[in-house]
Amino acid sequence: MLERFKVPIDEQVLVSEESLRRTVTEFFEKMGETPEDAAIAADTLVTSDLRGVESHGVSNMLRAYHHQYKNKDINAKANWKIVREKPGTANINADRGLVIIIGRHAMQIAIDKAKQVGIGAVSVYNSGHSGAIGHHAMQAVQNDMIGLVTTAAGTQVVPTFSSIGLLGTNPIALAAPARNEVPFLYDAATCSVAGNKIELARRIGSKLEPGWIADSDGVPIMEPVHVPEYAEGIPVHILPLGGTREQGSHKGYGLAMITEILGTLLAGSLPSMLASPGEEGFMHKHHFVAYDIEAFTDLDIFKDNMDRMLKMIRETKPAPGQESVIYSGMIEAEEEKERRANGIPLHTEVIEWFKTMTNEEEISDLEIS
Amino acid sequence: MLERFKVPIDEQVLVSEESLRRTVTEFFEKMGETPEDAAIAADTLVTSDLRGVESHGVSNMLRAYHHQYKNKDINAKANWKIVREKPGTANINADRGLVIIIGRHAMQIAIDKAKQVGIGAVSVYNSGHSGAIGHHAMQAVQNDMIGLVTTAAGTQVVPTFSSIGLLGTNPIALAAPARNEVPFLYDAATCSVAGNKIELARRIGSKLEPGWIADSDGVPIMEPVHVPEYAEGIPVHILPLGGTREQGSHKGYGLAMITEILGTLLAGSLPSMLASPGEEGFMHKHHFVAYDIEAFTDLDIFKDNMDRMLKMIRETKPAPGQESVIYSGMIEAEEEKERRANGIPLHTEVIEWFKTMTNEEEISDLEIS
Repeated sequence: MLERFKVPIDEQVLVSEESLRRTVTEFFEKMGETPEDAAIAADTLVTSDLRGVESHGVSNMLRAYHHQYKNKDINAKANWKIVREKPGTANINADRGLVIIIGRHAMQIAIDKAKQVGIGAVSVYNSGHSGAIGHHAMQAVQNDMIGLVTTAAGTQVVPTFSSIGLLGTNPIALAAPARNEVPFLYDAATCSVAGNKIELARRIGSKLEPGWIADSDGVPIMEPVHVPEYAEGIPVHILPLGGTREQGSHKGYGLAMITEILGTLLAGSLPSMLASPGEEGFMHKHHFVAYDIEAFTDLDIFKDNMDRMLKMIRETKPAPGQESVIYSGMIEAEEEKERRANGIPLHTEVIEWFKTMTNEEEISDLEIS
Repeated sequence: MLERFKVPIDEQVLVSEESLRRTVTEFFEKMGETPEDAAIAADTLVTSDLRGVESHGVSNMLRAYHHQYKNKDINAKANWKIVREKPGTANINADRGLVIIIGRHAMQIAIDKAKQVGIGAVSVYNSGHSGAIGHHAMQAVQNDMIGLVTTAAGTQVVPTFSSIGLLGTNPIALAAPARNEVPFLYDAATCSVAGNKIELARRIGSKLEPGWIADSDGVPIMEPVHVPEYAEGIPVHILPLGGTREQGSHKGYGLAMITEILGTLLAGSLPSMLASPGEEGFMHKHHFVAYDIEAFTDLDIFKDNMDRMLKMIRETKPAPGQESVIYSGMIEAEEEKERRANGIPLHTEVIEWFKTMTNEEEISDLEIS
């Protein structure tokens, strides 16, 4: 995460992993999830915060879920089920359940299938938010597999040359195990900036980079700006990865289409652009893949080669002015060690929200050290 | 393709599909491929030229392959074989054969597996060039499936903050069928610009866009430039998709890593960064996936939804100054119609090369209309 998106030191309060996990688990139980599923939900969110992925942690997501449960946009008693299945594939109707929970089950199904036939691919439609999809990809790594997860939802991203948004921020995550090196974990939106980072920028008052967003007509804004006025109360137009056509925005746009095709169309669902609030197509859609490495090569060879590659990248001479070369997952793994030991920094405004919410829901508030 | 990369009208000669196919097939037979494989090779290359993807057509590739056959860098008598297999997966050692040919066989294996278990994934290592990987993805579409292909090779792309290139241009392609709309076909490098487009720019003398390449120390060049002097005779440093860190180059870099992990590491091979010319790890690596749509939903539902989505995109109001919104595969499909009818434009310099080569190899030269 860019430095500017960190919570400023004088506006942060440290909360222990244990305390955050307890309050968040109680929250999901109170919303109607089973104790097992509430613990899974808390694990998905708290792991994001531990890894420094605040955009997908409790700060943004818990209040969104709270609102969605109250509005019955999502279903705490989701009767999710497999609607079609083959030895290597499954398609799951999530019955409007949150994928921060159902994602764990979907990836486990993919892993079990991969053990049988070498690869497992599971689509999940008619569902709620997934949290950071990299978390679900890591579940495959914990089983010595490669995990791939994509999500499609929303219409905030403006295709190249379009005047309006048609696609979601549609992220792609891939995680792969190594032996001694930190696992590779890529998890990024196919647009210039994750939607949740815009909300963080709004809260913190920081500027957005050139090429991140478009004006109200869809034209790329190529200088640093605050979240513009046209986006008061409505989602801002986000540009695809690349920003402009010359810089490759058609590639980011195409990658967003790929996640739409694998998550949405393949599941037999409609993309958000063709749906209205309340309709199935308006819900989130996901795709989970697990690769059994042993189906292709020896796990030892794979891990040794990963270590050699990742070490070489880490040890490569950086460009002038840069400190070091890093790979996806390194910073988050360091952050996790630090935060497990010293606590998770939350913005004072988030702490206030927790106080109000826990009071209202009559559950344990966070313990501030 | 950006207009500037088109062959200028006064420097082009039109050649019929039939004539190009004949000469190219004869070329591959002369190099030692079987008549069947020579026809497959010609089909892969000529289809690229028909679709306007000149960067991966005969102009750049045929002379590269000619050189590689003569140098024994690639093997016309490749005894490719499956080294490990499960019902949904296979790993192929290509024995240094060209994947413009073996790609057809690999994708067919993926398709056959998808028919059985819902999905098929095939890695191919120790191999030569693949041509445009979108061509192989389209093979799945011809079987009413979704096709996904990735490639990893080379060290031309500079990871974010690195002083040197470590990764290839590592493209990703995905093709999906529709009913009446032109199929979706995405095929793009995970870097700012395809390597072959740099060669085209060199030949045509056009400038490269800001954010496409780095200087000799790995620092992004942010103004339009000709191919720089440091790259005389050696590959220029290409930036990942995104260009700079602020614009999201870490995402392009991560996507390049994904193709490296799925193509190279999963196959048990080493990435180019860890190999020297002549070694197996220095060859190209590929990953082919076929999804059986019927394993997830009804094919009719899928195609109808694809049509609705693609039509909506096409008919969306463009941003001010833009003509229309397009999706991946549209322009290439139009180009194909036009070129099948009127011929394929080749640069006069390419025509000259064909004359010399066909004379040297004693095969039929192109017929110029």
